[in-house]
Amino acid sequence: MSINWNTIIGPQVLVDSKKAKRNIKRMQEKAVAAEVALRPHFKTHQSVSIGKWFGNPETTPIAVSSADMARMFASAGWQDILIAIPLNPRALPAYNRLASEVTLGLTIESIAALSTIERLQNSVDVYIEVDAGYGRTGISWRQHELIAQILTHARNIPHVRQLGLLLHAGNSYNARGDIGIAEIHHESLQRLQELLPHLPDAETLRISVGDTPTCSRMHEFPGADEIRPGNYVFYDWQQQRIGACEWSDIALALACPIIGIYPERGEVVVHGGAVHFSKDWANVDGKPVFGQVVHQTKSGWGGPIQGAQLIGVSQEHGKVRVPDAMLKELSLGDLLVIVPAHSCLVMSAFHGECVVI
Amino acid sequence: MSINWNTIIGPQVLVDSKKAKRNIKRMQEKAVAAEVALRPHFKTHQSVSIGKWFGNPETTPIAVSSADMARMFASAGWQDILIAIPLNPRALPAYNRLASEVTLGLTIESIAALSTIERLQNSVDVYIEVDAGYGRTGISWRQHELIAQILTHARNIPHVRQLGLLLHAGNSYNARGDIGIAEIHHESLQRLQELLPHLPDAETLRISVGDTPTCSRMHEFPGADEIRPGNYVFYDWQQQRIGACEWSDIALALACPIIGIYPERGEVVVHGGAVHFSKDWANVDGKPVFGQVVHQTKSGWGGPIQGAQLIGVSQEHGKVRVPDAMLKELSLGDLLVIVPAHSCLVMSAFHGECVVI
Repeated sequence: MSINWNTIIGPQVLVDSKKAKRNIKRMQEKAVAAEVALRPHFKTHQSVSIGKWFGNPETTPIAVSSADMARMFASAGWQDILIAIPLNPRALPAYNRLASEVTLGLTIESIAALSTIERLQNSVDVYIEVDAGYGRTGISWRQHELIAQILTHARNIPHVRQLGLLLHAGNSYNARGDIGIAEIHHESLQRLQELLPHLPDAETLRISVGDTPTCSRMHEFPGADEIRPGNYVFYDWQQQRIGACEWSDIALALACPIIGIYPERGEVVVHGGAVHFSKDWANVDGKPVFGQVVHQTKSGWGGPIQGAQLIGVSQEHGKVRVPDAMLKELSLGDLLVIVPAHSCLVMSAFHGECVVI
Repeated sequence: MSINWNTIIGPQVLVDSKKAKRNIKRMQEKAVAAEVALRPHFKTHQSVSIGKWFGNPETTPIAVSSADMARMFASAGWQDILIAIPLNPRALPAYNRLASEVTLGLTIESIAALSTIERLQNSVDVYIEVDAGYGRTGISWRQHELIAQILTHARNIPHVRQLGLLLHAGNSYNARGDIGIAEIHHESLQRLQELLPHLPDAETLRISVGDTPTCSRMHEFPGADEIRPGNYVFYDWQQQRIGACEWSDIALALACPIIGIYPERGEVVVHGGAVHFSKDWANVDGKPVFGQVVHQTKSGWGGPIQGAQLIGVSQEHGKVRVPDAMLKELSLGDLLVIVPAHSCLVMSAFHGECVVI
């Protein structure tokens, strides 16, 4: 498949469907081999058409990160949707409507949240978020009693269908390489094992874990019933730097036209800024870098161009440092293909709009 | 005017129309007093309805930062639109269509860009961007000859109507207080004065300058024909820290529901993350902070709550540090009102959707 670069005005998100579908398939095969279910997190792509690459919506359980996103995918045919962020009591009417249409899962992490669950009029699955070391949301794995208390209370609510525990080892994003990822993976699952014996009817709980680094690099998920990675469909520069993927796995990049050339400072400026790339970054020698320029090919893009990086973003401008030899060859209006630090935020900025190649 | 907080599910952008309209009026009065035209930059709000607060679209010249944004405002009735970012040769068809409908201004900064101007079929104004010290885009003010050469060439293109110079002292964003802002303001305008005598028919050039810090705090713009600030309609925490505005001028905040409470670490988590606030930040004691919590009032919000700040954002989660006394009073589902570091990126993330109070 080739791409007609002349038709791209930019800035534009490009999705390499071959790579993305390979990433999807690889994770499906891993889940089968590891004997866990796979519930891909759809916050990464936020696209109904890309969502269908994961399989038939009616039989593909998914995770999302807001009631609005659940609504979008429910309306498009997905039937089993877990909102994997602690519930917002103000969204009760939205949850109620969703629960009347699909198998809805909600996430809680306090006694207080149960009053929202109680007020629902339809059946829901309820997951208690457990913090096994990340330190963002969830109840600490050490708080056995509180978790047990919530479970007991939740079991008494007639319309609570399945009960579960939800873990997200987001601290794996600070890891480097398989050894670092494995440490966090094992620590997280070990803490789950410490917790379980303290919980009533623990064997009936559905255990959902997942994040892209551990799901990409680890092969066993002892104690888990399902894995819940999201970013792996595209990956990005942060994941490549963590060691969660290879350059050849990255399935999303931005094509940005050059609008300024500055030989005296070894830079070009592209149309493509914070509203396209986000301001998320990779730490390169202690400095924030927002994207890595890759080789443009007939069918998409190849590996990274050494020394060519997106070093600054304002609202619509992107400042790119380029090696002198490359700079001499560049003209106004040429496209640079740039892999962003964080693909999820890019797709959210573009509301899922992209050119699929 | 009061706001019904119960109807807000969040995360939601709130715009205080009274403050925004006062900010608009103040800048209009300043432009009149300084005897310069005002061309507000509409990239900040990206909203047709808020755009109308600036006056009648047919008689309000505006700046925008992309051909797409120009299209949106042209379709809604604005007649004089300057695209204040160096032109993208790939957008030629869009420029042509715009130039057939409105008084279009384009920005260039190279001889190469003139070939796009030559290929237009309709009249345009052409601004040469001059870099007077910011170091992002534009031709250095020292490069008299190059600027003169482009002007001479551009004058020979029959459909070039008005010629001008465009400056943006974006380095004022690193200034602190009136003295720091004044330094950059004077340096920038001094460099313009150094340049002008070297240019052919300099007196015929339209000089457009502007950025929110200098336009907010300075009172004279010697040598300029028009000022072009944008952010001032809302301001934000970064502007308050620069000294460009007071807390009471900030006209945009986000209402975010609390979804997690963590007394043991003095934090709450709100639904409201990088896709709402962006990852732009203020440097607080060397650390990135993404927003400042403010007092909620019946009619909107008041001043900052000391010690209550948005210290972390992931895709949809925001981690907020709160003082102990405040934390004790908070319940799940309560709203926090948070002034973002950078309001322009927030409005772009929400595609201009907001609750006007």
